[in-house]
Amino acid sequence: MSKINPETFNLLLHAELPTAAESGIYAETIDAGKASLVLPYSEKFLRPGGTIAGPFMMLLADVCMYAVVLSLLGEVKLAVTTSLNINFLRKPGECDLVAQGDIIKLGKRLAVVEVSIFSEDEIVAHATGTYSIPP
Amino acid sequence: MSKINPETFNLLLHAELPTAAESGIYAETIDAGKASLVLPYSEKFLRPGGTIAGPFMMLLADVCMYAVVLSLLGEVKLAVTTSLNINFLRKPGECDLVAQGDIIKLGKRLAVVEVSIFSEDEIVAHATGTYSIPP
Amino acid sequence: MSKINPETFNLLLHAELPTAAESGIYAETIDAGKASLVLPYSEKFLRPGGTIAGPFMMLLADVCMYAVVLSLLGEVKLAVTTSLNINFLRKPGECDLVAQGDIIKLGKRLAVVEVSIFSEDEIVAHATGTYSIPP
Amino acid sequence: MSKINPETFNLLLHAELPTAAESGIYAETIDAGKASLVLPYSEKFLRPGGTIAGPFMMLLADVCMYAVVLSLLGEVKLAVTTSLNINFLRKPGECDLVAQGDIIKLGKRLAVVEVSIFSEDEIVAHATGTYSIPP
Repeated sequence: MSKINPETFNLLLHAELPTAAESGIYAETIDAGKASLVLPYSEKFLRPGGTIAGPFMMLLADVCMYAVVLSLLGEVKLAVTTSLNINFLRKPGECDLVAQGDIIKLGKRLAVVEVSIFSEDEIVAHATGTYSIPP
Repeated sequence: MSKINPETFNLLLHAELPTAAESGIYAETIDAGKASLVLPYSEKFLRPGGTIAGPFMMLLADVCMYAVVLSLLGEVKLAVTTSLNINFLRKPGECDLVAQGDIIKLGKRLAVVEVSIFSEDEIVAHATGTYSIPP
Repeated sequence: MSKINPETFNLLLHAELPTAAESGIYAETIDAGKASLVLPYSEKFLRPGGTIAGPFMMLLADVCMYAVVLSLLGEVKLAVTTSLNINFLRKPGECDLVAQGDIIKLGKRLAVVEVSIFSEDEIVAHATGTYSIPP
Repeated sequence: MSKINPETFNLLLHAELPTAAESGIYAETIDAGKASLVLPYSEKFLRPGGTIAGPFMMLLADVCMYAVVLSLLGEVKLAVTTSLNINFLRKPGECDLVAQGDIIKLGKRLAVVEVSIFSEDEIVAHATGTYSIPP
């Protein structure tokens, strides 16, 4: 069972990382080791060509990984991303983005999480990240 | 010689990616295959622990890579990031971040760029990214 | 349905990359977009501490990605790896390694594949790679 | 000043990772935080198209990172690679490969190293790796 629910996570996000929360990102569902987050569409994320700019997808991926880690550890505020690798696969459309995160491995010092980002059911980016877990 | 100067790049950034520009990021120097950008310190980038959140460093790295690519190609608006790999090395202090980007290889279809991010002269993150170049 | 079967893939591996084949790597099952490969245990892969050295896991991951790509494209000899990102998660035991590869996205010019490597049912490494597809 | 010299490193490589040593890889120069290694050309590394196969470049990159780490720490046998990210930039020719590794950051628990691989003075691959340092 998840150690954090979407409501609590969303409040935490507003408190801890208000600039990220201002983007509109929110968690929709969180299960143990799994989280689904949404970046609601806004014109302000577009770059020329009518596509959502990469940094907003990286922001979404990073917040999604954080939700996955907290689903297993509870409110560990000092867990930090230590690396992130992302492949951009296709230009997203002008619509909401949905990120689905899954734990790959939870160790004592390190968590590894994978995130797929979808635009209208098509995968548009895939990221893998590592999180350092405080002792 | 660079095919774009910092003034033109900064105007382009405001026009193309206003949300990124609102963060305050600007190019300080651009030479052919090299660029130095600044993310001016703001409390809004902090996360608990008094450190600048990862997504703002990823944003800075991505914009810096774009400056490096444009320094070699000129205003190619449709060059897009295809992958980015970043290692977070140390918690940045509460001060400006400086990104230094260097071209690793410019091919016909792909450019590979490396970016080091510094906080008070200490490296805090290192990223490598690939850019797809339109034909 | 896969466009290549394990027998054909294993013959191809011996013909194309004999040094890899000499390691003993072989494909066990290949379905469309999925492949399972084995690196049979040998003392020669060990490094101090009794663990299998990273480069052999990278070799296994790379060959597994190739099998996944060929399962979708058939015998395209000139598909080449353009990037690989791997996280080593846990020291493997002194036993066979099993790699399970899955396609993330097959585009016209690029394929993205994910590989998980297991030692006695525990994940020990996770890799993501991109393949360039010849026109 | 480097805490290990090329002769000692090459002996260590033969003792610790004989399969890697059999490839012919050797360190040419090692300075503090820097190492230059060679993979002598051999037909057995080729893949169709007359190019050196990716896994041998990953092996070379990994061994080069190890040399860089040992140049700073001395003979720490249990330092292990925790991640590696590599971009293949160009097909190498049928000749020796030279890897040049540089430390990016040496921390207490983690070292980050960058490696560029050259074929006849042209860069053919670029890798970034992280090493876990035992306490």
